[in-house]
Amino acid sequence: MTEIAKGLEGVLFTESKLTFIDGAQGILTHLGIPIQEWAENSTFEELSFALLHAKLPSAAELAKFDAELRANREIPAELIKEISSFPPAANPMQMLRTAISALGLYDAQSEDTSEAARYAISVRLIAQFSTVSAAIARVHNRQDIVAPRADLTHAANFLYMLSGKEPSAEQAKLFDIALVLHADHGMNASTFTAIATSSTLSDMYSCVVSAIGALKGPLHGGANEAVMDMLDEVGTPDKAADYITKKLDNKEKIMGVGHRVYKNFDPRSRVLRDYAEHVANKEGKSNYYQILETIEKIVVDRMGSRGIYPNVDFYSGTVYSDLGISKEFFTTIFALARVSGWCASVIEYTRDNRLLRPDAVYTGATDQHYVELKDRQ
Amino acid sequence: MTEIAKGLEGVLFTESKLTFIDGAQGILTHLGIPIQEWAENSTFEELSFALLHAKLPSAAELAKFDAELRANREIPAELIKEISSFPPAANPMQMLRTAISALGLYDAQSEDTSEAARYAISVRLIAQFSTVSAAIARVHNRQDIVAPRADLTHAANFLYMLSGKEPSAEQAKLFDIALVLHADHGMNASTFTAIATSSTLSDMYSCVVSAIGALKGPLHGGANEAVMDMLDEVGTPDKAADYITKKLDNKEKIMGVGHRVYKNFDPRSRVLRDYAEHVANKEGKSNYYQILETIEKIVVDRMGSRGIYPNVDFYSGTVYSDLGISKEFFTTIFALARVSGWCASVIEYTRDNRLLRPDAVYTGATDQHYVELKDRQ
Repeated sequence: MTEIAKGLEGVLFTESKLTFIDGAQGILTHLGIPIQEWAENSTFEELSFALLHAKLPSAAELAKFDAELRANREIPAELIKEISSFPPAANPMQMLRTAISALGLYDAQSEDTSEAARYAISVRLIAQFSTVSAAIARVHNRQDIVAPRADLTHAANFLYMLSGKEPSAEQAKLFDIALVLHADHGMNASTFTAIATSSTLSDMYSCVVSAIGALKGPLHGGANEAVMDMLDEVGTPDKAADYITKKLDNKEKIMGVGHRVYKNFDPRSRVLRDYAEHVANKEGKSNYYQILETIEKIVVDRMGSRGIYPNVDFYSGTVYSDLGISKEFFTTIFALARVSGWCASVIEYTRDNRLLRPDAVYTGATDQHYVELKDRQ
Repeated sequence: MTEIAKGLEGVLFTESKLTFIDGAQGILTHLGIPIQEWAENSTFEELSFALLHAKLPSAAELAKFDAELRANREIPAELIKEISSFPPAANPMQMLRTAISALGLYDAQSEDTSEAARYAISVRLIAQFSTVSAAIARVHNRQDIVAPRADLTHAANFLYMLSGKEPSAEQAKLFDIALVLHADHGMNASTFTAIATSSTLSDMYSCVVSAIGALKGPLHGGANEAVMDMLDEVGTPDKAADYITKKLDNKEKIMGVGHRVYKNFDPRSRVLRDYAEHVANKEGKSNYYQILETIEKIVVDRMGSRGIYPNVDFYSGTVYSDLGISKEFFTTIFALARVSGWCASVIEYTRDNRLLRPDAVYTGATDQHYVELKDRQ
């Protein structure tokens, strides 16, 4: 019998120097540096540079890169007008997909697929995903779009554009950590989709637009929104234990628990969990946090021995909620972090490009002939 | 050493009942029926039904499907306004990607990922890709958009919207054949990208938008435009033999020649070639046709024994040119045919969905640590 690699699981299709994951041990590194160290010491700007260049920047390189990001935050007036005309009730990821696609129409370099152009476009995309994501949230909430500010960090500027208010240093730091944790994750489905698109030597905008479409699915970027749905369904902390015990007894799927790759605690979850705990100890435990705490304990007790642990989506929703971000925007925020990984992966793959064309086993009819309409049953 | 399946070549990842290709023998079938029989007897409407349902329609089913396509040709007024506001000089495939993405914002069913909804959206997409592609060509040419007519066939209506003039029956038939030949082709890169997106259970619009991005690349949909560039470069028929001999002597790549899958005459090329010959014998040989004829003869003589033959892109450009379509719109026309294959493949894959997540071999640094900025070289 012909062997089918369902989901392409375990199939190796390229080499990469960017990200290493050991799911069994719960290890994630970028350029060989553990994700915990990135979260603790670095910034989203620095990690984006590191992914695009496959090296840590010098102080001068980082300052230049940061200045480029700041200088590129503005989006064309035509695009602001277009986003403002979107039906506000539309799905935010559909809006993001459309707006980023439209952004390509206004980029004079968009058809240039040289590595230099791919890099320049990537810098603009990283800067402008933030602006576009914030603008979409504002339109969805029927608020006026807030223009970016060049004097804030990438993370602080996003929170500012989203709420219209400058965030505290602690809020900006927390959001920056979330961006760092989500910036890249190897050959996940959206990065792979970006690469599939780029493998025909298509342009950068097409690659990231494809990736947005893949990230949008509930099996990928939609998971942390589903976790919040669950927390809302639980309602109050006192109901959490009963709720989760019943789910586990009925062998129902629990959102934010388990991961295709990690069969150990997802290292990103640990970082977010520790930070959420730190905030809770300082400012009191929110309802969401208390529910999470209870669910985590029961899940780890009952399923940890089988390699099933809370994943990063389990905690990120609570962190975003604490930052005042409502759940319908979680996936667009995921996108504004992951765009760095998409761009870096496309640039890396294109250096040794090969058209992606796997095959299917044909199981349909053979030796058929066209039958005239009048002769059909 | 770890084995890498570059380009995923030869990797089987799913089953399909739709399309069978035997590249060595030059065979292409849909539902087991050879492509030649589809081209000779069927229509794009019928083949689209057959792909979506994996069966030939009854007369009543076909009439109903055709009526649905006709009833769904109109696009929202907001979208017409948006397309009209695109910068006219932008790349037509970037416009198509943006406009189809925007179409999703106006479809109340777009977030429904049930099979029934996927099917209903597919019918609308097949109908509206034609309207949107024609509108984009009009805007690109700085002409007013022409509204669709419900009294014409799918092929005739497209040519009408494109030129503003009703085509002859022969022109409509020729274009219909071209649509039939391009409707599906197994796990090509754009269909695979649509499936990669759908594997996260994302919506239909995201799937086809991703596919547009992949089709746009010069290694995929852009090939027939490149063939026309070559014919334009040759200039006049008397220069064709010299031009191609020199290219072959220098082992340069010749556009529209050879195919990753076909190591024999691409059966779609034969159909188009025969039709182009028929037209040429009737109406005289155009310059393009004469150049093609010369190149074909030399290529088959010198490379046929190595399994390298003219592919479908080699002839389609000439056919489109004869229909008065300029080369910058060839890929958008490819898209309006292939959308049937994309939708049918996504619906089929989703029935036994599995998240696509292959892997890369990590070749980067290991055991690194974050270095403070001040301590870097």
